[in-house]
Amino acid sequence: MYKLVLIRHGESVWNKSNQFTGWTDVDLSEKGVEEAINAGKLLKEEGYEFDIAYTSVLKRAIRTLYFTLYETDQLWIPVKKSWRLNERHYGALQGLNKSETAKKEGEEQVKIWRRSYDVQPPALSEDDERFPGNERKYQNLEKSLLPKTECLKDTVERFLPLWHEEIAPTIKSGKKVIISAHGNSLRALVKYLDNVSEEEIVGLNIPTGIPLVYELDENLKPIKHYYLGDQEEIKKKMNSVANQGKAK
Amino acid sequence: MYKLVLIRHGESVWNKSNQFTGWTDVDLSEKGVEEAINAGKLLKEEGYEFDIAYTSVLKRAIRTLYFTLYETDQLWIPVKKSWRLNERHYGALQGLNKSETAKKEGEEQVKIWRRSYDVQPPALSEDDERFPGNERKYQNLEKSLLPKTECLKDTVERFLPLWHEEIAPTIKSGKKVIISAHGNSLRALVKYLDNVSEEEIVGLNIPTGIPLVYELDENLKPIKHYYLGDQEEIKKKMNSVANQGKAK
Repeated sequence: MYKLVLIRHGESVWNKSNQFTGWTDVDLSEKGVEEAINAGKLLKEEGYEFDIAYTSVLKRAIRTLYFTLYETDQLWIPVKKSWRLNERHYGALQGLNKSETAKKEGEEQVKIWRRSYDVQPPALSEDDERFPGNERKYQNLEKSLLPKTECLKDTVERFLPLWHEEIAPTIKSGKKVIISAHGNSLRALVKYLDNVSEEEIVGLNIPTGIPLVYELDENLKPIKHYYLGDQEEIKKKMNSVANQGKAK
Repeated sequence: MYKLVLIRHGESVWNKSNQFTGWTDVDLSEKGVEEAINAGKLLKEEGYEFDIAYTSVLKRAIRTLYFTLYETDQLWIPVKKSWRLNERHYGALQGLNKSETAKKEGEEQVKIWRRSYDVQPPALSEDDERFPGNERKYQNLEKSLLPKTECLKDTVERFLPLWHEEIAPTIKSGKKVIISAHGNSLRALVKYLDNVSEEEIVGLNIPTGIPLVYELDENLKPIKHYYLGDQEEIKKKMNSVANQGKAK
């Protein structure tokens, strides 16, 4: 039996200002840093050991991993960073305020962009500075791989090759893995692992900064999963994420 | 022409308490964290960009790198951690106070252990908890590779394979490299690059937390090297390191 630990990054400065973030590389807020440190403390209390970590190329996930590994005294393990673990790309919505966009485009439209499985937000043009092809970080990737926008379905499709080619074989080799990532790249993983339907996965809210443990059998089928820490606190967190898209 | 940036970790809590550290995985002091942040700020001011980073498996070097990359907004680059970049292993001296050891064993003996090229400090036994073979961190390494003590010559010999097999080819491929490491693993590199004699290398003090830039020709022969930042401050730092081994 294998254990896989997932962690969604803590609050970012744009969570706070209620902006669509996506691939925008915004930092953790102070609260987000605290959440990451607390996640590390929980893992330490429970004695979790890791052999390797995976994260995105976005600093809010990388820093969350850093604080987690620092608190558990495991900064020395290898860390692999992949754009395939990035948050869903929010296209031309990136940078816009969620409530203002709801006022302008209608709550229903924003809900569709945020919570439908296969409707993409408006796409960026390639000369937009927000297009990943214009960032040094993505310069070695084939342009055809780089999104101009994504629905959750797209995120699932670009995440899965990393799972199948790297993470799954690593877990099967007996290495203990932790993944620090984002709401939607973790949804992509959870959808695959638990075979969640397209309708259900969009309503699944993974709370920030809480280690989510999956126990997997020898074929990496989930036996069970659970969050570490105060279960009441976790429920409150799951509900608060669901309310961000409303016009105030 | 290539640029290679070296950085020695900032002050650790055992630098402060004047203990022999070696492979003991002690943390940065608050001053050490500040030094690392300042190094990052210097690199940012000068516009340094990196494609890949190398560091040891000791947290004082890993954290120094983390703060450096955070300040320069390059947390997303790949980071490779290798025991070959660890500090020199100080054998049975690890954990002892430098001044007390000087009183007990004589200043001259301590100077020999600290500053000779090829005299090893007393070795650890394999059942000593300080022996690397007893740490999870080194469990996947062949036991024959793990030191029980090291003189600088040993450190040079175990560092160079990493240089020849990984770092040098990476630089030649055009990737911009930063290395965050330790006084003696950086001495090992500088000795090799500048072809410094055994007598001279032991007297060379690389100041902590100051980016050291090497400009290298197409064969990785140094054209010149220089420290970034306030040159007077750097000289003071180089002298202060030399005085630690004296009985107070």
